[in-house]
Amino acid sequence: MTLPFTTINELPTPCCLVDLEKMQRNIERLSAHIGKLGCVLRPHVKTHKSIEVTQAIIKGGNVKGITVSTLKEAAYFYHHGIPDILYAVGIVPNKLEQAADLIDAGCDLKIVLDNPAMAELVVETAEKYSCTFKVMIEIDTDGHRAGIDPHSDALLATAKLLSTCSNIELHGVMAHAGESYNCFSDESKREIAAQERDLTLIAAQRIRAIGIECKDVSIGSTPTAHFVDNLDGVTEVRAGVYVFFDLVMSGLNVCDEDDIAMSVLTNVIGHQQDKNWVITDAGWMALSRDRGTESHPVDQGYGLVTDISGNVLNDYIVADANQEHGIIRPRVAKVGTEFSHFPLAQPIRILPNHACATAGQFDTFYVVKGQQVVDQWQSISGW
Amino acid sequence: MTLPFTTINELPTPCCLVDLEKMQRNIERLSAHIGKLGCVLRPHVKTHKSIEVTQAIIKGGNVKGITVSTLKEAAYFYHHGIPDILYAVGIVPNKLEQAADLIDAGCDLKIVLDNPAMAELVVETAEKYSCTFKVMIEIDTDGHRAGIDPHSDALLATAKLLSTCSNIELHGVMAHAGESYNCFSDESKREIAAQERDLTLIAAQRIRAIGIECKDVSIGSTPTAHFVDNLDGVTEVRAGVYVFFDLVMSGLNVCDEDDIAMSVLTNVIGHQQDKNWVITDAGWMALSRDRGTESHPVDQGYGLVTDISGNVLNDYIVADANQEHGIIRPRVAKVGTEFSHFPLAQPIRILPNHACATAGQFDTFYVVKGQQVVDQWQSISGW
Repeated sequence: MTLPFTTINELPTPCCLVDLEKMQRNIERLSAHIGKLGCVLRPHVKTHKSIEVTQAIIKGGNVKGITVSTLKEAAYFYHHGIPDILYAVGIVPNKLEQAADLIDAGCDLKIVLDNPAMAELVVETAEKYSCTFKVMIEIDTDGHRAGIDPHSDALLATAKLLSTCSNIELHGVMAHAGESYNCFSDESKREIAAQERDLTLIAAQRIRAIGIECKDVSIGSTPTAHFVDNLDGVTEVRAGVYVFFDLVMSGLNVCDEDDIAMSVLTNVIGHQQDKNWVITDAGWMALSRDRGTESHPVDQGYGLVTDISGNVLNDYIVADANQEHGIIRPRVAKVGTEFSHFPLAQPIRILPNHACATAGQFDTFYVVKGQQVVDQWQSISGW
Repeated sequence: MTLPFTTINELPTPCCLVDLEKMQRNIERLSAHIGKLGCVLRPHVKTHKSIEVTQAIIKGGNVKGITVSTLKEAAYFYHHGIPDILYAVGIVPNKLEQAADLIDAGCDLKIVLDNPAMAELVVETAEKYSCTFKVMIEIDTDGHRAGIDPHSDALLATAKLLSTCSNIELHGVMAHAGESYNCFSDESKREIAAQERDLTLIAAQRIRAIGIECKDVSIGSTPTAHFVDNLDGVTEVRAGVYVFFDLVMSGLNVCDEDDIAMSVLTNVIGHQQDKNWVITDAGWMALSRDRGTESHPVDQGYGLVTDISGNVLNDYIVADANQEHGIIRPRVAKVGTEFSHFPLAQPIRILPNHACATAGQFDTFYVVKGQQVVDQWQSISGW
C-alpha cells in the first residue's frame, strides 16, 4: 500500500499513533511469559478492534483465539479469518439471533452468563435455533463486577440448567480479576492473580464433580496475566491493553512509561502565558474522558506529554480537556511552563491514561517507527 | 424510509435514543428566546454531528449558519447543503489546505485564532492559496480556555496583522463563556452571560476604533444563551448541547431532567444481589467516560436511570462503568436495590451526564416518540 504520509509531521491532528516496535515488544513479552507457563493466550481485542493489530498478536505466538466485547467485533473478526471467539459480556436472549447467525456461518463462538435465572431465559430461547451455543459461566473471583460465586449453589444450578438443553454445550468457566487494577504492589498483583486462578479452578472442579463436563478454564486481566506464576489447570489467559499499555498500567508498575505504544499526536494552537497553559487541538474527543490515573499516586490528568519523538516531557500533563481543546501545564500548577518546549503550530504527543478508551475514539491508527509513518491500520466501533 | 424497528423493545442494546418531542421543544425554546432578543443562532453541531438534527434546528427558525469543531464536520455539513460554517477551534497553518479546499468549493467558512504569533504564521501560509480566508479573533471573557484579552495590545496587533494580508478578511470576534458551566445560581449565569457579551463587544469596538472592520460579534454557550437578556450589538449566538440537554445542564438549572432528549437504551444482564448491583450492557463505551456532574451538588455517576418509558427511577445511578458493563445501584450506596425495577433481560434507559460525549460514542440515533421508533438518524465521527 502506498501511504499518503511518510513522517509524523505530515499527519493531520489530532490522530492516533502506534509505535510498531514497542507494540511488538509488548506482544512478545506476554507471549513468552504465558508460553513458559505452558499455557496460551486469548487476547482481548476490544482494546483496538483492529484486524492488523490482532494479526500482529497472533504472529507473536501462543495464541488460541480471541476475546471480544461486542457481537459486532465478533462478526468483524470472524469475517477477517478468526474463527475461535469468546464474547465476554453477559448475553441476553435477544442477542442470541445474532450469535446464531455467526455460529451458522461457521464461527466457533462462545457466549457468557452468570446466573441461573439468565440461564433459564437463554435455554428457553436457544431452543428456537438449530445451532449449538457454547456457554461459559462467568465466575466472580474478586467482587469487582459480574460473575457468580465459585462456592455457591447457584453455580451448580446454572451448570445443571445449561446441561439440560440439547443445543447448549457448557463449555467452561471464565473470570476477570478487575480488582487487579487497584493492586499497586507487585505482591498484591501476584496474590490477586493466584486468587483469580484458584477460585476459577474451584468453580470448574465443582462443576466436574457433579458429572458435568467443563473443558475450558479461562482467566485474565493485563495485570494478572503478567504476574501469574503458575497456570496448571488453566486452559487460556485473556488480556487486552498490554498490546499498547498505558499510564494506568505504568502507574500499576505492569510496564514502564517507555513501553506505552499508543499516543495521540496533537498540535499547539495557542499559549495562555499568564496561566501557564499550552492549548492544543486534542481534547477529550481524541484523548477520551478516561481519568484512570485519578486515584493513582501520580495523577496524569488526561495524559502525559512527550515531544514529537516520544520522549516524556517531565512533568507536563493534559490538565484539562474540552471537546477539541486540551490544556497542558506542569503537573504542579504553580511551576512555570517552559513555552519553548511547545512552539505554536508544532506537534507533540500525549500518552493516554487508558489505551482502550483512547483507541475507541479513532478509526485509524498511524503506525510509526521513530518519526516514520510505516503503515495505516483501521479499526471498527459501535455495536 | 422503512424502519427495521417499530418499538424500543426491538432495538439492539446498547443504543442511543433521541426523544423527538423533547428535542423539538428544546429547539423551539432557544429559538424563541434569541428571536425575542432580536438576534439569530449559529448552533454548534459538534453535539450530534448529524445532518438530520441540524435540519430540525434550522426548521426551528432564527438560524444563521452553523458552528463546527472539526474540518471533517465542516466538509460533511457543507456537502449536505449548509454553506455558512464557523470552525470554532484555533487554526494551525497545516489545516489551511483543507480549509482552502472547502472555500474553493463554495463553503462560506470562517476560521479562528487568538494570538499575533499564530496570525503571523497564518498570514504567511495563507498567501500560498488563491482564496480569501475569513478569520474571527477568539476573545477570552472568563479565563476559561483559549482567547485573547479584549483589553490587550495583542488584540489590536492581531487585528492589524490579519488586515495586512490581501487574502485574509478579518470577519469578526467570537467568545465562549466556558466558565458558565460552573455557574449554579441563575444570578451567576446572568452575570457571566452579560460579561461574555460586554467583553466581546469591547473587543469589537477596539478593533473598529483603529479603523479595521469587524462585522460579526459571536458569543455563546448553552447556559449563557438561555440566560442572556440583551443582545444589542451581538450578531449571533452559539449553543450546542441545548438540543438534547443532559444532566450537567439540569444540574445547572438550565433545563429540567424531563427536558433531556437523549438517552442510552441498555439491557439488564445480571444482578449482584449481595452488593445491590444491577449489571447492564451499557458501559463507558456507550455512556462515555464523562463525569461532568462529579463536581455538582448532585453527582449522577455515569448517568441517571429511567424505566423504558423515560420515567426517572429515583434514585438509581450508573455508579461504575467498564468498557461494556454498567453497574447500577442507589445513589446512596447503603440503600437496598429494589431488583423488581430491573428484571433480567429487560431494557431500561440512562440519561447522560454530557450529551456531546455520549452522542460521540454512536453513529446512529434512534428517534422515538414514547416507545415508538419513528426514525433513524446517522452521525459522523473522527477528524
